[in-house]
Amino acid sequence: MIAQILSTGDEVLLGDIIDTNAAFLCTRAKELGIAVEKITAVGDFAGSIAAVITEISHEADICLVTGGLGPTSDDCSAEACAMAAGDRLEINPRALKTMQAYFAKKGFELNPENEKQALLPSASTMMENSAGTAPGFYLQINQCVFFFMPGVPAEMKIMFETQVKPVLIRRFGLDDDIRVERLTVFGLAESTVGQRMNGFNEQFPKIRIGFRADFPVIEVKLIQHKTGHSSNTAAADLVRARKWVMDRLENKIVSESGRSIAQEVGQLLICQKKNLAIAESCTGGLISNMITDVSGSSEYFVFSAVTYSNDAKVRVLGVDEVTLIEHGAVHEQTAIEMARGARQVAGADIAISTTGIAGPGGGTAQKPVGTVCIGVADAHTAEARQYRFLFGERSRNKTMFATMALELLRRRLVAVGKTA
Amino acid sequence: MIAQILSTGDEVLLGDIIDTNAAFLCTRAKELGIAVEKITAVGDFAGSIAAVITEISHEADICLVTGGLGPTSDDCSAEACAMAAGDRLEINPRALKTMQAYFAKKGFELNPENEKQALLPSASTMMENSAGTAPGFYLQINQCVFFFMPGVPAEMKIMFETQVKPVLIRRFGLDDDIRVERLTVFGLAESTVGQRMNGFNEQFPKIRIGFRADFPVIEVKLIQHKTGHSSNTAAADLVRARKWVMDRLENKIVSESGRSIAQEVGQLLICQKKNLAIAESCTGGLISNMITDVSGSSEYFVFSAVTYSNDAKVRVLGVDEVTLIEHGAVHEQTAIEMARGARQVAGADIAISTTGIAGPGGGTAQKPVGTVCIGVADAHTAEARQYRFLFGERSRNKTMFATMALELLRRRLVAVGKTA
Repeated sequence: MIAQILSTGDEVLLGDIIDTNAAFLCTRAKELGIAVEKITAVGDFAGSIAAVITEISHEADICLVTGGLGPTSDDCSAEACAMAAGDRLEINPRALKTMQAYFAKKGFELNPENEKQALLPSASTMMENSAGTAPGFYLQINQCVFFFMPGVPAEMKIMFETQVKPVLIRRFGLDDDIRVERLTVFGLAESTVGQRMNGFNEQFPKIRIGFRADFPVIEVKLIQHKTGHSSNTAAADLVRARKWVMDRLENKIVSESGRSIAQEVGQLLICQKKNLAIAESCTGGLISNMITDVSGSSEYFVFSAVTYSNDAKVRVLGVDEVTLIEHGAVHEQTAIEMARGARQVAGADIAISTTGIAGPGGGTAQKPVGTVCIGVADAHTAEARQYRFLFGERSRNKTMFATMALELLRRRLVAVGKTA
Repeated sequence: MIAQILSTGDEVLLGDIIDTNAAFLCTRAKELGIAVEKITAVGDFAGSIAAVITEISHEADICLVTGGLGPTSDDCSAEACAMAAGDRLEINPRALKTMQAYFAKKGFELNPENEKQALLPSASTMMENSAGTAPGFYLQINQCVFFFMPGVPAEMKIMFETQVKPVLIRRFGLDDDIRVERLTVFGLAESTVGQRMNGFNEQFPKIRIGFRADFPVIEVKLIQHKTGHSSNTAAADLVRARKWVMDRLENKIVSESGRSIAQEVGQLLICQKKNLAIAESCTGGLISNMITDVSGSSEYFVFSAVTYSNDAKVRVLGVDEVTLIEHGAVHEQTAIEMARGARQVAGADIAISTTGIAGPGGGTAQKPVGTVCIGVADAHTAEARQYRFLFGERSRNKTMFATMALELLRRRLVAVGKTA
């Protein structure tokens, strides 16, 4: 089964937007066992779109098209499709009815501009848009079935899941019944993870492996189709594959279920009935932001002090002025006092702290940009470590510092969990 | 001048990465007055790449290719190029020398795998890679000049700027001498901004307008080529165009120089010699993170209290327990007391606060998810406003709340600046 993806829209070719639709469709296609061979993007010109459609109609079995279904004069995917198919456009009664219902629900009347969106190739089958006005449609041209979806990612995604996927599965006998295993890796470059996975495909030909890098973390995904296996063999196979991968990534796995480090930390805090305080300097609120991006974090996260100035470190966290004078702000002792202070101010069970130099300014020969001290304090102990990262760039440094701090917190919680 | 872009790499077709290179190249091409007509992405297979190269060689004047220059067996762009050009690969002595120098600087020896990267089509001209090992190259095939660049965005960008652009300008007589005006817009949907700009191209045919949405903010860019204008007329034209755009966006412009709201706030604080404290609840550290993403923010940002629990609001910020009991955490009065408290604790000149419901949980009929109260306090006054946003999604709500808080701070600083 060979597929191609066609993105339409001037905004892609002008660089005004990044085409995330194509990446989404590639991922979902892969999960369905469909190989995507080519992605093409062209502007809003019916002639160009029609030419590409004709070409693809001889090359692929499936083509997933996004964009160009809107109400304005730029939107010409239906017209281009009709041109390529030698078909004509006509008002699709079901499309019109759905749009009228959508507008009525929002308390508006359908205007003539929107009515244009119900003009579909006469031979096509309409697909409902539950998240917007533009209906989609599909039809076969030569050897290829073309699925036309809106360009707005939220509308496209729901149309793919609810309308396109079922047709694909039925029409091409695809296997949607999959098992997916996810692992989260931190502390290795993407290329190193890839190298360590060399040989996987030979060892486990029936399981597909994929990577997604979200700096500085990498998700490793194992995908297994259920059909065509006896379920026992398949399950045993996946267990072996998972172990094979885990052995090669050793202690770099921070979640065995694909969670983020912040989510892992949240789960551990909930299980251990502990709450968390944070004292941030160089990370400037990023750790708190990562923690509170997790829905339900109010259960365990109580307080963070972003003490950017030395004065705030002393005033709010009770860091000793002598420590700051003797060692400076970027020092393990300062990190320890910050973590202890945050814990005490908030009355929290455990606290972490960061103090360092994110750059571009502020570095010295002894403490260059990229230096960070991270502290962890709980009822039993308080300790800090110094790291040096060489990313050079402020936002990457902040992200790396924050992730490392969450990782040290995670390790502490795991260690405490084992002792308990 | 017609250009096409070709992205190579299995990782694009597998959905493992989003192709941001294409968007970058489209933007830069547009600025040089080059129209990009088509973007194609294919996998790491020399045959497919060669077929696409041959096709493009008859369609375009310029083709910008990324990816496939690495040391592994997957990387086959040079091979594909030689196939399409009817050329052979040979060691390029300058490429080899540059790579040896690069490795020597890093303290490594060149290994045979990397030596492969110096194998370039014999008719091509090598382009130096100052940020990595893979050299680039360019050569003409049929009517089109192909530029091969690495897929790593940082390497590609610097090679484009330092190597590709000068060749393009020289070879195609392009005009790199441009004036760019940037405006930052907040409070309008992207489609609304687009609608309001209808008629711009007719009014100002010699100036190009572009948009870049970075939720919830939109950058509007005006690009004017200097050559071929008398400089007075051109300057007057750009002033008129800028005014035309500003009139249509009214009070939604938050920066007249394309800065982010956090950067604008930073500039205002520096000019007014004020420092800033923040009290965050529902935004969970995001405002502080946005403020500290600006390099040099330690000049004016002193402290943020992320008081997620009511207890922390009372303990650290001195919010009155009676206020919390009578009005609840999400209330203007709480926001006012939080801002006042942060200002006092930090000894800061001005403070902002947020308290609201980012979701998905925690909403009520009276205070649904998306409700936020934002407070601003300075030496003269403390006030708060309530807003309700309907994005539904936690991270978008947090981003919207934080941006709105920064915008209220910006407006206060502007108002104070005018009075002073």
